[in-house]
Amino acid sequence: MILGITMGDAAGIGPEIIVGAWREIVCQTNSRAVVYGHPEILQHAAKLRNINAVITEIQTVNELLLKSDTSDIFSEASFSNVLTIPCIRCGEESVTKVPHGTVDARAGDAAYQAIIRAIDDAKAGIIDAVVTTPIHKNALNLAGYHYPGHTEIFAERCGVDDFAMMLYLGHGENICSENGLAVVHVTLHTAMKNIFGMITIESVLAKAKLIDDFMKRIIGLSKRQPHIGVCSLNPHAGEDGLFGTEEIHIIRPAVQQALAEGLNIEGPFPADTIMVNARNGDFDAVVAMFHDQGHIALKLLGMHRAVNITLGLPIIRTSVAHGTAFDKAWQGTAQTGSLLEACRVATKLALSR
Amino acid sequence: MILGITMGDAAGIGPEIIVGAWREIVCQTNSRAVVYGHPEILQHAAKLRNINAVITEIQTVNELLLKSDTSDIFSEASFSNVLTIPCIRCGEESVTKVPHGTVDARAGDAAYQAIIRAIDDAKAGIIDAVVTTPIHKNALNLAGYHYPGHTEIFAERCGVDDFAMMLYLGHGENICSENGLAVVHVTLHTAMKNIFGMITIESVLAKAKLIDDFMKRIIGLSKRQPHIGVCSLNPHAGEDGLFGTEEIHIIRPAVQQALAEGLNIEGPFPADTIMVNARNGDFDAVVAMFHDQGHIALKLLGMHRAVNITLGLPIIRTSVAHGTAFDKAWQGTAQTGSLLEACRVATKLALSR
Repeated sequence: MILGITMGDAAGIGPEIIVGAWREIVCQTNSRAVVYGHPEILQHAAKLRNINAVITEIQTVNELLLKSDTSDIFSEASFSNVLTIPCIRCGEESVTKVPHGTVDARAGDAAYQAIIRAIDDAKAGIIDAVVTTPIHKNALNLAGYHYPGHTEIFAERCGVDDFAMMLYLGHGENICSENGLAVVHVTLHTAMKNIFGMITIESVLAKAKLIDDFMKRIIGLSKRQPHIGVCSLNPHAGEDGLFGTEEIHIIRPAVQQALAEGLNIEGPFPADTIMVNARNGDFDAVVAMFHDQGHIALKLLGMHRAVNITLGLPIIRTSVAHGTAFDKAWQGTAQTGSLLEACRVATKLALSR
Repeated sequence: MILGITMGDAAGIGPEIIVGAWREIVCQTNSRAVVYGHPEILQHAAKLRNINAVITEIQTVNELLLKSDTSDIFSEASFSNVLTIPCIRCGEESVTKVPHGTVDARAGDAAYQAIIRAIDDAKAGIIDAVVTTPIHKNALNLAGYHYPGHTEIFAERCGVDDFAMMLYLGHGENICSENGLAVVHVTLHTAMKNIFGMITIESVLAKAKLIDDFMKRIIGLSKRQPHIGVCSLNPHAGEDGLFGTEEIHIIRPAVQQALAEGLNIEGPFPADTIMVNARNGDFDAVVAMFHDQGHIALKLLGMHRAVNITLGLPIIRTSVAHGTAFDKAWQGTAQTGSLLEACRVATKLALSR
């Protein structure tokens, strides 16, 4: 199992969380990992966090396979004081000049190049999953890449239309269910004014099916069906049409269609109460109608543990659920929990394929 | 100090939480309380919860004042096994026939009559605050009263246009700030499609001022200024206009206007991160753009402690933050924490006038 981890925006917290979490990533996932990024920046990040690491530049992942077998990697990470972090150099050298904590086209370009290389390696089967660290959308835009986020880059590069962005919190603090809690979004990076045309019977149904498939793989395909709850769009689930009719004309028919197709699904429920019930273990997964509906809940429940997962791709992609945190970057204090969890979930998904 | 507590929908959990919380309400708020509702239903609720209570029907609150002085009430609640609960009978007798846990016009009518009587008594200065327990909007509608909720009934009866619905969680579990956390909503009981016309510089500014005034009273007027955070409407605070422009054209100018008027206010921030920061104590109060933005967060942070408060009224009105819970009503198990907290906050507000 090989995880490809992209370095993200060089001005943000990506580099330091990668080196900070490296030992646990390798030990806890029983995987090898390779970074798509810049060796010199990773070396700086290691120094910042007082981690004794050698960043080893490799040209291709195959080189990594030739260099050492799996057991060596594990024993090194477990017992050695010096970590070896393999890195595939991506982007221009100018990225090393980017000031910390700033929006910079050079960082945006390098981040993009790393993502593309990792996607292509995953598509070619050279790596088993891609785990991404944060990019800054404005830096990406300044570099000439006009995407609202990672999710859309992955979808386009993989040639899929039917994809979704999901947040996942594993069992633990605040999450009662042993299978964790997943929230998928019917609409995502778009103005609220535009979501109404995008919430259709087809789109709600499609997201429900994607999250059902995901949770089956997390729960274990043979055990039982995931229990899925669907959010309403309007307050109080529209109060029987008093505060909007999308529940009646779109969301309820979509739930009924999903039931007819064999899903264990209920809704629409008011978005404020479904999240409390989901936390309490009533649901394995929730279908949210828009970005903040899911994000407000999952960030409150576990900002530093949450994992962002793209559903519907031919490859596996997970990510941290936080941003570049320019205000806290390059101080050596950024929390690594979300990255470690993203690597754990990526491994679990890769094993279940 | 006299609190008027409305019984809510007779088929819901209102009656049982009133009798369940009565002793603590009287002891912890140093107040007297009177119920606007139906004596027989309260008596049933007391029996259900095994509470030894005598429901004493009174015609007017003045009668309560004649009957006993304050010290008697407190000593009785503290030491006696038998509670005396004064009740002003409201609505028709037929409300006693309403089956538990069902939508019924007779319950809607009785609930409405109780609310109106309590509002009028508060306006006349006969009681110091109104604390409401849940009503069911469909029952209200069946009875011919077409309001989306309590808030709008209070606003209309008090003749105010500039009002707001706020949720408040006191210091304690999940809330770091000793002053608690308040969230006010710019739009409320309306379809999401309709909120865009209602989010204006004026409406955002008005809600910010209302919550600033509220938190000053909670914090203590002389101590310091409340720190207010303002939510964005769009994901990622609109990402500099990529995902919507309301942040640029409406919310940011409103914040600047509020700053110019002397408020300690910041924003707009992405709604998912502001709630995490508010929980951590960075803000005393948050201005949310729509119902679920505030409700998802505060219900997750403390569903059974949250208090609903109407700002902008000439009288004080607080409420439980939960609904009628028909599925759990009349089983004697409904939690009383939110009602007790609503009475505590009402008392605090009345004392600060």
